[in-house]
Amino acid sequence: MPRLWDATIEAHRSQVRDAILETTSALVAERGLLAVTMSQIAEATGIGRATLYKYFPDVPTILLAWHERQITAHLAQLTQIRDQVGDPDARLEAVLAAYTTLSQHGHGQDDSIIGLLHRDEHVAHAQQQVHNMIRELLAEAAAAGHARDDVPPEELATYCLHALSAARRLPTPEAIGRLVMLTVAAVRRPG
Amino acid sequence: MPRLWDATIEAHRSQVRDAILETTSALVAERGLLAVTMSQIAEATGIGRATLYKYFPDVPTILLAWHERQITAHLAQLTQIRDQVGDPDARLEAVLAAYTTLSQHGHGQDDSIIGLLHRDEHVAHAQQQVHNMIRELLAEAAAAGHARDDVPPEELATYCLHALSAARRLPTPEAIGRLVMLTVAAVRRPG
Repeated sequence: MPRLWDATIEAHRSQVRDAILETTSALVAERGLLAVTMSQIAEATGIGRATLYKYFPDVPTILLAWHERQITAHLAQLTQIRDQVGDPDARLEAVLAAYTTLSQHGHGQDDSIIGLLHRDEHVAHAQQQVHNMIRELLAEAAAAGHARDDVPPEELATYCLHALSAARRLPTPEAIGRLVMLTVAAVRRPG
Repeated sequence: MPRLWDATIEAHRSQVRDAILETTSALVAERGLLAVTMSQIAEATGIGRATLYKYFPDVPTILLAWHERQITAHLAQLTQIRDQVGDPDARLEAVLAAYTTLSQHGHGQDDSIIGLLHRDEHVAHAQQQVHNMIRELLAEAAAAGHARDDVPPEELATYCLHALSAARRLPTPEAIGRLVMLTVAAVRRPG
């Protein structure tokens, strides 16, 4: 009985936490980081202010937890896509295209917030895992003769992630598709 | 006599302003945006606090003025390089390489500060001029048959500027050279 109760408590806490993350992300995207207060978050989530403070000390911490959860979920999706595609060249392109689409979603946040988030070590760690996956795919594609081998995979991965961040500035899915095509074209072995 | 006096005053004001900009940029790069106060800036510049407030109301405004001045100076340098190189293909690569080197300099500032700066309309305007120049070079190179014409020059320019921002994450001038080579490779007409 105590163990079942613990599990119930844990599931409840996890639900409340998720609700806080979603609400905060939506409020910040709508109003900006500096305009959102803990009181507004508590009210929009439908919990008391005292309860909210049992979960998180302030707005930036909530946003960091949200961003970390996002990247971790994206990493799981990218891993799945990677493992579904057999050919190393097609695999690289599929993962980069999916990464670009995923990092568009839920990013109402602007550059300055993203900058602040990426200084956090948990978020940086999650982002590094995405970087590592892309780097490994590039190394694999280079070994198979598809990707260029005159630039280290580490640098190619850094290039890809920055080039694909241009997606936030592009107006249509077609333009984003062309960006992925361009980015992949540069890492392909010439000739 | 009054006109000469006005010119002297103007030159003095301009010198003080430049000194404030340089000092603030150095302090922020060293200590971070939130750790630098107006008093510290006044002291490091060698002027009184009251004088400083006659020039600028707060630290972010000084940093914005500094960043705007940087981008404007870079634009002038890029224009000069553009006008020196005859061949459209070589011109594009020379300007992109110079842009990458210039935007490295004096950027002790981290991502979150750069994000904040780019929300300012003056800085955004100066940055837009750099974007326009790159777009025109790409259109010119496409017309000459060097750059690809299956992606609009506007999108190619957005791609280039984001891809080249990876330079801030690269450890050596050689790695930055490879980044410029990769970025340009993608915009070249295939085949």
